[in-house]
Amino acid sequence: MPRINDNYLKLKAGYLFPEIGRRVAAFVKENPTAAGRIIRMGIGDVTEPLPAQIVEAMHKAIDEMSRRETFRGYGPEQGYDFLREAISKHDYKARNCDIAADEVFVSDGSKCDGGNILDIFGEGNTIAVCDPVYPIYVDTNVMAGHTGQADEKGEYQGLVYLRATAENNFAPEIPRQKVDMVYLCYPNNPTGAVATRERLQEWVAYARSNNAVILYDSAYEAYITDDSIPRSIYEIPGGKDVAIEFRSFSKTAGFTGVRCAYTVVPKSVMGRAADGSTVPLHQLWNRRHTTKFNSVAYPVQRGAEACYTDAGKQQIKKLVAFYLENAKLIREGLAACGLACFGGVNAPYVWVKTPRNMKSWEVFDLLLKQANVVVTPGSGFGISGEGYFRISAFNSRENVIQALPRMTAALAGQG
Amino acid sequence: MPRINDNYLKLKAGYLFPEIGRRVAAFVKENPTAAGRIIRMGIGDVTEPLPAQIVEAMHKAIDEMSRRETFRGYGPEQGYDFLREAISKHDYKARNCDIAADEVFVSDGSKCDGGNILDIFGEGNTIAVCDPVYPIYVDTNVMAGHTGQADEKGEYQGLVYLRATAENNFAPEIPRQKVDMVYLCYPNNPTGAVATRERLQEWVAYARSNNAVILYDSAYEAYITDDSIPRSIYEIPGGKDVAIEFRSFSKTAGFTGVRCAYTVVPKSVMGRAADGSTVPLHQLWNRRHTTKFNSVAYPVQRGAEACYTDAGKQQIKKLVAFYLENAKLIREGLAACGLACFGGVNAPYVWVKTPRNMKSWEVFDLLLKQANVVVTPGSGFGISGEGYFRISAFNSRENVIQALPRMTAALAGQG
Repeated sequence: MPRINDNYLKLKAGYLFPEIGRRVAAFVKENPTAAGRIIRMGIGDVTEPLPAQIVEAMHKAIDEMSRRETFRGYGPEQGYDFLREAISKHDYKARNCDIAADEVFVSDGSKCDGGNILDIFGEGNTIAVCDPVYPIYVDTNVMAGHTGQADEKGEYQGLVYLRATAENNFAPEIPRQKVDMVYLCYPNNPTGAVATRERLQEWVAYARSNNAVILYDSAYEAYITDDSIPRSIYEIPGGKDVAIEFRSFSKTAGFTGVRCAYTVVPKSVMGRAADGSTVPLHQLWNRRHTTKFNSVAYPVQRGAEACYTDAGKQQIKKLVAFYLENAKLIREGLAACGLACFGGVNAPYVWVKTPRNMKSWEVFDLLLKQANVVVTPGSGFGISGEGYFRISAFNSRENVIQALPRMTAALAGQG
Repeated sequence: MPRINDNYLKLKAGYLFPEIGRRVAAFVKENPTAAGRIIRMGIGDVTEPLPAQIVEAMHKAIDEMSRRETFRGYGPEQGYDFLREAISKHDYKARNCDIAADEVFVSDGSKCDGGNILDIFGEGNTIAVCDPVYPIYVDTNVMAGHTGQADEKGEYQGLVYLRATAENNFAPEIPRQKVDMVYLCYPNNPTGAVATRERLQEWVAYARSNNAVILYDSAYEAYITDDSIPRSIYEIPGGKDVAIEFRSFSKTAGFTGVRCAYTVVPKSVMGRAADGSTVPLHQLWNRRHTTKFNSVAYPVQRGAEACYTDAGKQQIKKLVAFYLENAKLIREGLAACGLACFGGVNAPYVWVKTPRNMKSWEVFDLLLKQANVVVTPGSGFGISGEGYFRISAFNSRENVIQALPRMTAALAGQG
């Protein structure tokens, strides 16, 4: 019988969102009449329709696929040039980041890329993650065998945890020790914190002097409205030599059900082989991408390209502004009844301190049962998330307006 | 500097198809006037437009995405129930294979799944592949560290190669030694051979008595017209306990540019943990799929579902019949001028013996330069592929009719 990857058995419980799903399903089963009242503010999943420009581009591409003269089979594994070039031009060169089209790898999701990127790294690296953290970074490292067992708190041996708390304004300190890889996510999921230019400069300086690679998740960069805050790690001089950046159309353009993202691997970012030689990570990722991936549906790539037209940009801006207005309503509504709220300004997530030091899952269960509102328990993101919960601004206005008084009533009952 | 995955450095040259692409590009650069004359019969990539039923379903799904009431964000990572159920019903239960919907995992490609499946297996397994073989099976095992270095012939230490030659009618013998995992592909890529029921029964018996797992690639099952030949390994009693099956809409429904496939992991297929306990591979793959994948675009899943409507089935059948007619023309055309041809009956690939014992790449270069036709050199699939070349039936009729006399003239010149 084949040996399995025993690292999978180290994983604690299910991935956070399936666990939330199970609790909601159990509640609905016991309270079938409440099912219609449930408002989901847990998973960060968009609710507003696809912008018209994108819809039009996708229809057009499907029509092309329906005629022999314009039909397209396999595309380049790394994505079509039209999309890689649009990304390079609009997302990078327009912001003075020198990222070439062939450093952009189109994919079906940042979650996928964030896990798959570990394929190209070896064993024995010291890896740092923030705490709280998007669970995928940790789980995929566990699955790849880069950690030991979990301790009683659920933290894995071998990982370096960088704490983000209200005390440090959710900006973890630069590690004093040397690490080989560090995951950063700004605007942050789950805390909604953003990184200032100065702080990112410190991170790039750290990476350069320690030969570390930064895995920079900027899936929420479209939510930055403050011009002083960098949207890309490549806006920092020298960032291009030390960072891989992950981006997605999911939250920018409503693509969670359409699936398109991209990862930037500059040719100047290096890794070290066993013989001591240095190898461009671009070469390894290109090999991984061409061997284990076959790119994204042609109509989807045309939809993503439409995001960069003038009309597409306008429509996307409106979409992002809509969710940011939700974030403002949530933040101000909860703050008004005395809850400490963070994020939600340049980010679609509001990070809320639980009242009376309640545990995260206690608040989750309370809000599910009394307000019929689903939030994400902060402890699901790591031990520094205990005592917080995350509210997603990805919702209809109607849901936000309905959920807020229910939530404040339920939480006030605990005050 | 982070350590890289040194296994990548063991890989010999590029993946076959990029190498073909490079040679064609170089030829075109030197002979710009020949560019328009080139007919590509190398990569097995469909050419005919998407069937109308699929186009309609995709348009409808995109319209749903354009309205708030019917918009869909994240779907279930494993695929929507509507598609998993259609697959279970039409592809399996209709053929008396007891495969449940929740044993079907929808994905963006069989190539991707075929590589990613290795995530759930550990080290120290003995792995058998056929030779010639679809290169992805070998390359992904190299990348996962399951092999040693390549020898001078390009074969990797640690893999068990099962030879498929004209002498054994391209049906490799059941190994005498015990292996833990074996890759089988029927209808075969590249040889076009099919497996009889008796032979598949022997494989299932081997796997059962050796506790081996069969990784069964049936991406071309739609091309089987002979009712006596199984389309699925699960048609063999006991197959469900020992086999994972990979299938794709790529060649069945023209989805190479649309991207949809699925992998079946029955709950009864087991692996062994370090402590000796057995673990269902279904549980591990489900965890991999939910953590490192986010399913396929909703409009694509609706397009795939449309393949199972009555009209969709008819249209797909016509599409497959069209390519099979191409295969017949190719096989008969080349056989008529004295070439030994295999496959191309229940399969979209014709496997041709080179004339006068020419090397595969010699024939490739000859056909590229003299006939301006691109074929796939057999040696790219392994050492037993040397002395053969593969012709894909995925082409327009016009191209097939134009290419055949050019090919026979070029090859006869060598006779």
